[in-house]
Amino acid sequence: MPEFRKDPISGRWVIISVERGKRPTDFTVRIPPKKSGFCPFCEGNERTTPPEIAAIRDEGTAPDSPGWKLRVVHNKFPALFHEGELNKIGEGLFDKMNGIGSHEVIIESPDHNATFSNMPIETIRDTLVIFNQRIAELKKDSRFKYVLVFKNEGREAGASLEHSHSQLISLPIVPSVVQEELNRSKEYFDYKERCIFCDIIEQEKREGKRLIYENDSFVSIAPFAPRSPFETMILPKQHMSNFLDESNFEQLASILQITLKQIDAVVGLPPYNLMIHTSPFTDETSDYYHWHIEIKPKLTKFAGFEWGTGFYINPTPPEDAARFMREADI
Amino acid sequence: MPEFRKDPISGRWVIISVERGKRPTDFTVRIPPKKSGFCPFCEGNERTTPPEIAAIRDEGTAPDSPGWKLRVVHNKFPALFHEGELNKIGEGLFDKMNGIGSHEVIIESPDHNATFSNMPIETIRDTLVIFNQRIAELKKDSRFKYVLVFKNEGREAGASLEHSHSQLISLPIVPSVVQEELNRSKEYFDYKERCIFCDIIEQEKREGKRLIYENDSFVSIAPFAPRSPFETMILPKQHMSNFLDESNFEQLASILQITLKQIDAVVGLPPYNLMIHTSPFTDETSDYYHWHIEIKPKLTKFAGFEWGTGFYINPTPPEDAARFMREADI
Repeated sequence: MPEFRKDPISGRWVIISVERGKRPTDFTVRIPPKKSGFCPFCEGNERTTPPEIAAIRDEGTAPDSPGWKLRVVHNKFPALFHEGELNKIGEGLFDKMNGIGSHEVIIESPDHNATFSNMPIETIRDTLVIFNQRIAELKKDSRFKYVLVFKNEGREAGASLEHSHSQLISLPIVPSVVQEELNRSKEYFDYKERCIFCDIIEQEKREGKRLIYENDSFVSIAPFAPRSPFETMILPKQHMSNFLDESNFEQLASILQITLKQIDAVVGLPPYNLMIHTSPFTDETSDYYHWHIEIKPKLTKFAGFEWGTGFYINPTPPEDAARFMREADI
Repeated sequence: MPEFRKDPISGRWVIISVERGKRPTDFTVRIPPKKSGFCPFCEGNERTTPPEIAAIRDEGTAPDSPGWKLRVVHNKFPALFHEGELNKIGEGLFDKMNGIGSHEVIIESPDHNATFSNMPIETIRDTLVIFNQRIAELKKDSRFKYVLVFKNEGREAGASLEHSHSQLISLPIVPSVVQEELNRSKEYFDYKERCIFCDIIEQEKREGKRLIYENDSFVSIAPFAPRSPFETMILPKQHMSNFLDESNFEQLASILQITLKQIDAVVGLPPYNLMIHTSPFTDETSDYYHWHIEIKPKLTKFAGFEWGTGFYINPTPPEDAARFMREADI
């Protein structure tokens, strides 16, 4: 019998379609081996990207020249523009405003073949530190309410360049998905006087069946109602509403890489999307919101049923996914 | 300058990314020509599908045998199961219930090469009549609150078989996307005492720039804040909350085919999803909700930004899309 499950944080319903139940080896979407050829993100091609905003560089090297370990540049085809005023206006019964925002690209390594699964842990840690610094910097601009950090790995997951990179978009409005999480976790807190994320971590640690891995500071779990097979959530074990808080980025880099290695070992090298959800600038410290990372392998299609309902059909129960990942030989 | 636009019916924000602005010919996703070979939906192969629930057949022909114009069968791999009780229960702080529902497939024509763009109008009209009959039938089952009718055309849009078919899923809960539309249109009605859909039709007809086509009973428009390039909405011109109302299915079949021919003429033969949104069984007749069809070509990727925010980036302004479609040579 399939099961309807409700995610208490986002409010979304998911159908866990056990009978359509898929083994990890049933999924055949793989990231193909990377090609050689011209790449604007490789060392030596710095002039082909927009100018550097930030970088980790060897001493004495100039911006936009070789000698870097990590570069942050503006997106060449930004979804939003940095300069200008919001200018909210109506058009009859419709509402619109200028597309103000920053759209930055973090090139995590000069190595064309690096991925979060195979790069040195220190490179991931450096990347997390840079995310943190960029968010802190963009926060100073009062036009912005939120910064979304995300990573698309693999063309199927939306990456237009195969050289590993993350993206960061600052926004003048709180994303609706985050707002929904804020509203629901606030409701829960008002009723229970506890953080729903902390309660979920507690329940998952007690039951164990959806727990994937933990170290001193972080835990990875398969959500009770995941949108996709092998969807994974990484959360700080202690209550922490904001990614800008003093986080243990060594341990975060470690659990992040372990999670991706586990997914790779079980499913092959699937395309994936990674998103950081944190509190908006207007509401940074709270007892009810808990920052986290969502990793969503791209293994199923989003089609008419999903568009028409807002529900998801997931053929892999999270209990199975978590077990496979725990037992993965990484 | 890109623009943030808000869809007043769903509440979703969309970034119209004019500078990334794409011409129709920039989109290269096409449905490939259909292949010959074994197809369970072709005439003569009736025994390879689950048994017929309904059909339009030549007189004297038996169910599950040749001699049909249209067949409705259960989905061989149903997302939900028809038999059983809902049995809502908790699991610690989580909520779940049995996956009760019907999952039916409507094979609109025995012709393997038929599509909604090229089949006789009468076939589309018959299909709409059958949708209506199946919804009326499923409505009698008190476990169900909603029936979603949808169609995935092309593998990229989620179709697993290329022989044209639609699907219908009855649900024990109102889809969250529909509930959001109901809430917002009710809010608008409470404030304005007018239907927001009627107001939008009125504004679009007056302004003309997002109006695509109209006949006596229906109108097609490019939404102000579309999720994808060439997204189109078809609505009855007179207020009608429910698809089960006496609709003019001749005219609906006609505008539906014209819309798809326009999209095909402008973009090529893109994969698409089509969804019917109507009032739930619990709230069938209302002054505030207005049933409609949404057609969403699959031309852009849903990636980390969309998953992380709930916002969409659309590189084709709807005013351009509507103009291209109006001027299409069909």
